[in-house]
Amino acid sequence: MDGIPRDIAPRDWTLTEARRALATGRVTALELVQSCLGRIAVRDGDLRAWITLNPQAEEQAARIARDDPRPLAGIPVAIKDMIDTGDLPTTHNSPLYGTHRPAADAPCVEVLRAAGAIILGKTDTTEFAACGRNAATGNPADVTRTPGGSSSGTAAAVADRHVPFGLGTQTGGSTIRPASFCGDVALKPSWGLISTEGVKRYAVSFDTIGLFARSVADLALVADVYALPPSPVLPKRRLRLGLTRTPYAEALEPEGHALLDSMAERLAAVADVVAFDLPEGFAEVDNLHRCVQMCEGASAFLNLARARPTLLHQDFHDRVEMRMGYTQDEHFAAYDRLAVLRMALEARLAGVDALIAPSAPGFAPVGRHPGDPKFNALWTAMQVPVMNVPVPGLALPLGFSLIARRAWDRQLIEIADRVMGAL
Amino acid sequence: MDGIPRDIAPRDWTLTEARRALATGRVTALELVQSCLGRIAVRDGDLRAWITLNPQAEEQAARIARDDPRPLAGIPVAIKDMIDTGDLPTTHNSPLYGTHRPAADAPCVEVLRAAGAIILGKTDTTEFAACGRNAATGNPADVTRTPGGSSSGTAAAVADRHVPFGLGTQTGGSTIRPASFCGDVALKPSWGLISTEGVKRYAVSFDTIGLFARSVADLALVADVYALPPSPVLPKRRLRLGLTRTPYAEALEPEGHALLDSMAERLAAVADVVAFDLPEGFAEVDNLHRCVQMCEGASAFLNLARARPTLLHQDFHDRVEMRMGYTQDEHFAAYDRLAVLRMALEARLAGVDALIAPSAPGFAPVGRHPGDPKFNALWTAMQVPVMNVPVPGLALPLGFSLIARRAWDRQLIEIADRVMGAL
Repeated sequence: MDGIPRDIAPRDWTLTEARRALATGRVTALELVQSCLGRIAVRDGDLRAWITLNPQAEEQAARIARDDPRPLAGIPVAIKDMIDTGDLPTTHNSPLYGTHRPAADAPCVEVLRAAGAIILGKTDTTEFAACGRNAATGNPADVTRTPGGSSSGTAAAVADRHVPFGLGTQTGGSTIRPASFCGDVALKPSWGLISTEGVKRYAVSFDTIGLFARSVADLALVADVYALPPSPVLPKRRLRLGLTRTPYAEALEPEGHALLDSMAERLAAVADVVAFDLPEGFAEVDNLHRCVQMCEGASAFLNLARARPTLLHQDFHDRVEMRMGYTQDEHFAAYDRLAVLRMALEARLAGVDALIAPSAPGFAPVGRHPGDPKFNALWTAMQVPVMNVPVPGLALPLGFSLIARRAWDRQLIEIADRVMGAL
Repeated sequence: MDGIPRDIAPRDWTLTEARRALATGRVTALELVQSCLGRIAVRDGDLRAWITLNPQAEEQAARIARDDPRPLAGIPVAIKDMIDTGDLPTTHNSPLYGTHRPAADAPCVEVLRAAGAIILGKTDTTEFAACGRNAATGNPADVTRTPGGSSSGTAAAVADRHVPFGLGTQTGGSTIRPASFCGDVALKPSWGLISTEGVKRYAVSFDTIGLFARSVADLALVADVYALPPSPVLPKRRLRLGLTRTPYAEALEPEGHALLDSMAERLAAVADVVAFDLPEGFAEVDNLHRCVQMCEGASAFLNLARARPTLLHQDFHDRVEMRMGYTQDEHFAAYDRLAVLRMALEARLAGVDALIAPSAPGFAPVGRHPGDPKFNALWTAMQVPVMNVPVPGLALPLGFSLIARRAWDRQLIEIADRVMGAL
């Protein structure tokens, strides 16, 4: 009765279950890694989540002792190929970086490694996590569909049980949308709490590390690893959850509307779901986000346009040449306007424990285009923590977003735990 | 009559003069580089501006053709050792990075190289451009004094005519203060206009690339290289310049007060200097800046504290452990409050062409501590472009800051040109 499921393979365990199995000697880290690699061998020919696998993974796992006290000791993890790794290539899915070997781990990777994680490999991404080339990855639930993007490979690998945990990024909707399409429990933390150094830059004001797992407990454990700050303890009373379809409700598919329609009933055991009015002017956020993203992209890709123009996708030349319809004056005005809207949102969020909103318009579309980030970009622009909560029992994976105040990531994780318990 | 001074060595030319000399065949790029290296050989034993010199510099210069049309073709430049270079070590003046060799240039370096610049070497810095170890560099005007920091080596190397141009960084006052102490013409651009990717992160909301030169024309040329955005053309009428001693006037030394007292008279030929009232609450900015800097520093240095704690200076452990007296809730509240103050400042800046403020409390202090960044951090927090304008004829180098609206960097350069013409 050690709480480790006995009828499934090690690769099927959550991070927390795997850690318990390792600590109690049920499996060795090498066996866990081999179980994951076995799954990849069977599945990844179709799924194409991985760009590079770590040839040292088994050797590294073999060195993990059963009594290793580190929180992630022996846990195989996936790293989006936008994020530098000192021992594996980092391609950004760009022909400019096909042979690029960073000299060091990005800080967010070094933190995982210091906690004992085994970097199992690098996962596919939309080119520079922005536009240009799509990832080759398919959706584990239906390989003809997209897993979403840009964190396509990590979202698919975690959902398909290649690894219990992985890193993605989010500048618009690159973590929460693929998590919804694939059925992952994912957290886009408050902006700025996890360093994005060593991650190819797109829009520095929005770029955020995304955390993908299959259980809320796993995210709580990783929150410790990344030293996410303490937030007030959640009261034991019933939750009060606001619900918004955002200003873009007309973009929701029928299954997206149906899911939101069902929230009050689904969560009746733990929460009152109440209508939530967004601040005046909130419909501007998508355009403000786009303005900042495009203008910050102009400086982010200048070096490539100047030094290596031929293999750079036209989408990036357009950003550098400021052909996206915004000026740098508008860029700074957008910072200010977003700050005003953040303050207004923060004030309203104080009236609920968290907010429920769509994670995506609906089920994952057929094809490889990663889908519309409209339902995610607005929260990215607000700097708030967002979790994708997958809903069981639907025809295809679909989740909803839970949203809390900035820096209250840990309370949000607690809320998600209660909410998932009710689903 | 080609406008190139004839009675000085190539190393003494400004960037613009050197480019003209190269294009007209007065010197070759190799001769220019050798002239600079000769100066370094004589001076740097005492000055200690450089951590690493590029052993390929002469070879690279020899490959620059006279008719190379690139804007910086053959120009030797200094790069602060906080900024990644693909062909030279990057130490951050930290024992943790003593042997670190990045795999690629930082984008800001790649842009210079694509424009034809020769990276002459890497210059000393305060540890991680933050705290901990001071640079070993002395002030060219008096080697017993600090050149300021954290961009100590670049500031000294440009002022001492080792190179006509160099890159630094600024998170608090790391560009404008050393430029004042050394006598450089320097620009801290509007936040976000030049990518800081590949620069060791400290506080991502403030980290900015700083440009050091010996003439305003040089900065205008480099503004082209970095594609700084167009700003409205400066009207031909007399300038209207606001003057503020900031909320920290009590920290000014007598020479700092005297300089500001003299501004109206010094600039009488080109400008009306008028009193400028800062927005209500502006005295908070220094503390808000400190809050954001410390809290962003917590995530920036987490990986080093976790993976390589022994050689990490205690100052950084204190940030990671959030022992600096701020919470993450205060951190996000500080973002909001700074945004409100930015909007208020922007509105008032519309009433003048630019603002005059102190670049430093006074002359460079004796020793190696880089001095107080109070007069710079507030403008960094405001995201506005700032130039240091050196004032000739004083006992030691001292400059003042010219400050404009965000994204109006090019108009600020024009204003500085008129102002320097009057000094």
